[in-house]
Amino acid sequence: MTYSVDIKSNEVGVYALGGLGEIGKNTYGIEYQDEIIVVDAGIKFPEDDLLGIDYVIPDYTYLVDNIDKVKALVITHGHEDHIGAIAYFLQAVNVPVYAGPLAMALIRNKLEEKQLLNRAELHEITDGSVIDFDKMSVEFFRTTHSIPDVFGVAVHTPVGTIVETGDFKFDLTPTTKQPPNLWSMARIGHDGVLLLLSDSTNAERPEWTKSEAWVAKSVNRIFDQLQHGRIIFATFASNMNRIRMATDAAIAHGRKIAVFGRSMESAMTNGRALGYLNVPDEYLLEQSQIKNVPDDELLILSTGSQGESMAALARIAEGSHKQIKLKPKDNVIFSSSPIPGNTASVNAVINKLEEGGANVIHGKLNNIHTSGHGGQEEQKLMLALMKPKFFMPIHGEYRMLKVHAGLAHELDIPTDHTFILQNGDVLALDGESTRVAGHFPAEDTYIDGSGIGDIGSVVLHDRQKLSQDGLVIVTATINLKRKEILSGPDILSRGFVYMRESGDLINEGRRVIFSTIRRVMNGKNPNESEIRQAIIDDLARYLHRETARKPMILPMLIMI
Amino acid sequence: MTYSVDIKSNEVGVYALGGLGEIGKNTYGIEYQDEIIVVDAGIKFPEDDLLGIDYVIPDYTYLVDNIDKVKALVITHGHEDHIGAIAYFLQAVNVPVYAGPLAMALIRNKLEEKQLLNRAELHEITDGSVIDFDKMSVEFFRTTHSIPDVFGVAVHTPVGTIVETGDFKFDLTPTTKQPPNLWSMARIGHDGVLLLLSDSTNAERPEWTKSEAWVAKSVNRIFDQLQHGRIIFATFASNMNRIRMATDAAIAHGRKIAVFGRSMESAMTNGRALGYLNVPDEYLLEQSQIKNVPDDELLILSTGSQGESMAALARIAEGSHKQIKLKPKDNVIFSSSPIPGNTASVNAVINKLEEGGANVIHGKLNNIHTSGHGGQEEQKLMLALMKPKFFMPIHGEYRMLKVHAGLAHELDIPTDHTFILQNGDVLALDGESTRVAGHFPAEDTYIDGSGIGDIGSVVLHDRQKLSQDGLVIVTATINLKRKEILSGPDILSRGFVYMRESGDLINEGRRVIFSTIRRVMNGKNPNESEIRQAIIDDLARYLHRETARKPMILPMLIMI
Repeated sequence: MTYSVDIKSNEVGVYALGGLGEIGKNTYGIEYQDEIIVVDAGIKFPEDDLLGIDYVIPDYTYLVDNIDKVKALVITHGHEDHIGAIAYFLQAVNVPVYAGPLAMALIRNKLEEKQLLNRAELHEITDGSVIDFDKMSVEFFRTTHSIPDVFGVAVHTPVGTIVETGDFKFDLTPTTKQPPNLWSMARIGHDGVLLLLSDSTNAERPEWTKSEAWVAKSVNRIFDQLQHGRIIFATFASNMNRIRMATDAAIAHGRKIAVFGRSMESAMTNGRALGYLNVPDEYLLEQSQIKNVPDDELLILSTGSQGESMAALARIAEGSHKQIKLKPKDNVIFSSSPIPGNTASVNAVINKLEEGGANVIHGKLNNIHTSGHGGQEEQKLMLALMKPKFFMPIHGEYRMLKVHAGLAHELDIPTDHTFILQNGDVLALDGESTRVAGHFPAEDTYIDGSGIGDIGSVVLHDRQKLSQDGLVIVTATINLKRKEILSGPDILSRGFVYMRESGDLINEGRRVIFSTIRRVMNGKNPNESEIRQAIIDDLARYLHRETARKPMILPMLIMI
Repeated sequence: MTYSVDIKSNEVGVYALGGLGEIGKNTYGIEYQDEIIVVDAGIKFPEDDLLGIDYVIPDYTYLVDNIDKVKALVITHGHEDHIGAIAYFLQAVNVPVYAGPLAMALIRNKLEEKQLLNRAELHEITDGSVIDFDKMSVEFFRTTHSIPDVFGVAVHTPVGTIVETGDFKFDLTPTTKQPPNLWSMARIGHDGVLLLLSDSTNAERPEWTKSEAWVAKSVNRIFDQLQHGRIIFATFASNMNRIRMATDAAIAHGRKIAVFGRSMESAMTNGRALGYLNVPDEYLLEQSQIKNVPDDELLILSTGSQGESMAALARIAEGSHKQIKLKPKDNVIFSSSPIPGNTASVNAVINKLEEGGANVIHGKLNNIHTSGHGGQEEQKLMLALMKPKFFMPIHGEYRMLKVHAGLAHELDIPTDHTFILQNGDVLALDGESTRVAGHFPAEDTYIDGSGIGDIGSVVLHDRQKLSQDGLVIVTATINLKRKEILSGPDILSRGFVYMRESGDLINEGRRVIFSTIRRVMNGKNPNESEIRQAIIDDLARYLHRETARKPMILPMLIMI
């Protein structure tokens, strides 16, 4: 694919490889002359129509094409939508990585899994760290989110400072005891911000997101009340702050802790190793030990708060979990809210748990969840602290970006200073004016189960087609020189029609193909691909006329 | 009254003359060596048990006793609980006054009324103004509230910086277009704050107070919908921002504006003169003109949103207003929420308006009011920006101060670094440690109708007593030297018992008094006050025994 990007030497270019118009695969580039700083390397979790796809990463073509310019990958925090693609990123562009302690630990795990750790250059940063490159420098400032070690970055360029907030809320009483660095943000803003890129996730919520301290109070109150029975606490394994809260409450209430679910187990391991979780050895149980501990002295931390069918909680609810059989006095706390689309499966799990006699505590009324992203008031605070000349809402679907832009307007950022862009759009700023300096390819790249391949959108389209109307395979052996059909054409179908009950259809189809092949062979300079396409076109037309279906047609021609 | 205050030369003293344990009469002192800076000179509106009292001011004794030290009165904003006592204050301690433009205009009005304007030294300040005194300096930083020109003050002393926030919310999209100066606050905090005094009004609300911009959207939407009939808009005359919102909406919807209620009229005059209200002459009606304007082209701005019986709105509702007779198509908007205690009277006015056929729009559901004070999240933000070493919640009743102190603790300010004090307590800080350096008198001082007198708490107690059991006056003419009762004793009562139906009680009372006077006269060195007290004691005992009442007893003795 050809494309054209033209950033002038007096301009800084800013673009997203992912993260605009979507929740996920956050990857932003800031480019000045021969330097490119990349912020984050995230994945996106596939939507339901991406069949068999494990996750989605950006198309790194533009970075690969400019590989000599790329100086660093700086990481805002350790969530999958910000670091999940790190292995693929470094395989494409192997540059030094700068990340906070927790993100770095998770990155190490990922690289180790892919045997890439020894090839990577990793640098740990903290609040206030400044990394100097030749022409640009990157300053990290602490923000708050649902895990520890979360940072925004200010990229100081000769043209002006570009701030990328990362995911943030302003949690002034965080359970991490790592409050946002308001003073740094105010200083950066006071010194002048040319362009702010800010998290739009909760742009539609006209509120200040509740602090984790508020959730902690509720969780402790609930632990106070639940004197009897086990407590099963389900939340995102990625929400380290919430895990801290649950384990603290357990220990304060004399409950030992068992962990179920692979991602939760690894969160426990990482969290303890890095000191984010304060769980003494004597409080941590092996899974097999839970039967030896009285119910009212036990906390089970579990994945599956989104109703995921394979997660520990769903299996407990269904009675198919090996170690945990539901008991009538069990208490199950959902410390999460269902992501849109998951409500039905969450409800199904809740129903099964309640049918099994468990006491299920969930929902907003119990004050046991709060978002990791700031609402409008916090987005306004970020805008007020940074007071940028130009504004680019990021991290969000189109309507969220739109609302966020409207908010900025309320803070007197002119509409023509606000940019709702798409992945691959390049915004160029010279300090005074702005222009779109081109566009590069930024389609989704799909990663399937094997975890290595790069599956294009064509494959996905195929899977979709297959899932709808099935597959028709056409085989034939052809000698083009002698214009002979040596065998076939034969037809094999899967997921289309029952072969046995469709003899006429198949036979007539074979006749169609036979005459197609003959027609093309007898034309001018016939070649294989011409024959293939003609078979597809003619057979598709015939089958659609007869069945109103559009199966995938796959000619397997042997040319001899 | 004697008292002892001992602030050492290496200490800064901080105290409240009013504002602690109450909403109102905010007056704080910051004292270093021979300099005292006073912040605000507010009144408090009397509670129901203060009969006949118009308002309450602090006892200025301590400042008068230290009059040579007092260098300035600095004003945070123009609300009555911060400037209402200015005339009394300057009569007690005539020092230069520093205030923002709106507060200064209101102060000028007040001083002019009392013919004190020519004696006062007034200095206008703005955001960022710094006033240098010999040893201390005062820096103003802009905050947001329900009127324009609202400031917090940082008093820089050789011992450290003391910050007094004034009333505040963090309204990042204020209709005033005067956003809070976050950068100054962050800089002051970063440079080090020894002690923060912060507004506790909404300490019990675990939220971020909604912006005026949010109210403005609702008000505009309501104006859109109300195509027919007059709109009567009732709010606090002190809420200049809301008045701006209503007048802007009226003009945008082609409605002319008439103003009713003395305080609302003066708000309109001040607001227009200072540019806070943008109401062109052709949009402003004389009260008498409203009958000449079509109903759907009219906005009536009115006082009485708290159901005050004498205010314009109550009189409209009752049908006793001269110019405004309620019409069935009238729309009445209450852009306020009832102050606790006023709910019943507000409801009564609403009922009458609705009985009269008006469409009444009120309450939270309509999103037409928001507080001028920040909730917990904003109080936390102030604490996080200032990160003070010590903390003293102000502006609030005891339980609000208590909750605010708890919030500070969540932000890691140790409990023993937080001070919930009372008016008159002197906190002394040497930069490292703190101690209570004494206490001065800080009782309420009552201002009654005439507006000049100083009515002590005794008078109030009397009024209370009178209102309960009435008054018994005892008259007698006595010659002490000759130990003779020349006339009386006679008894006159008001509000106690019907004289006519209580002949026995009165006669027996006279006998009691007669023997009391004789007994005291015949004792050692009798004097008038001894006789007075004895009459009160004996008659009170007798009357209480006979009637179970405790009227006020007032001996009027003529000694010859």
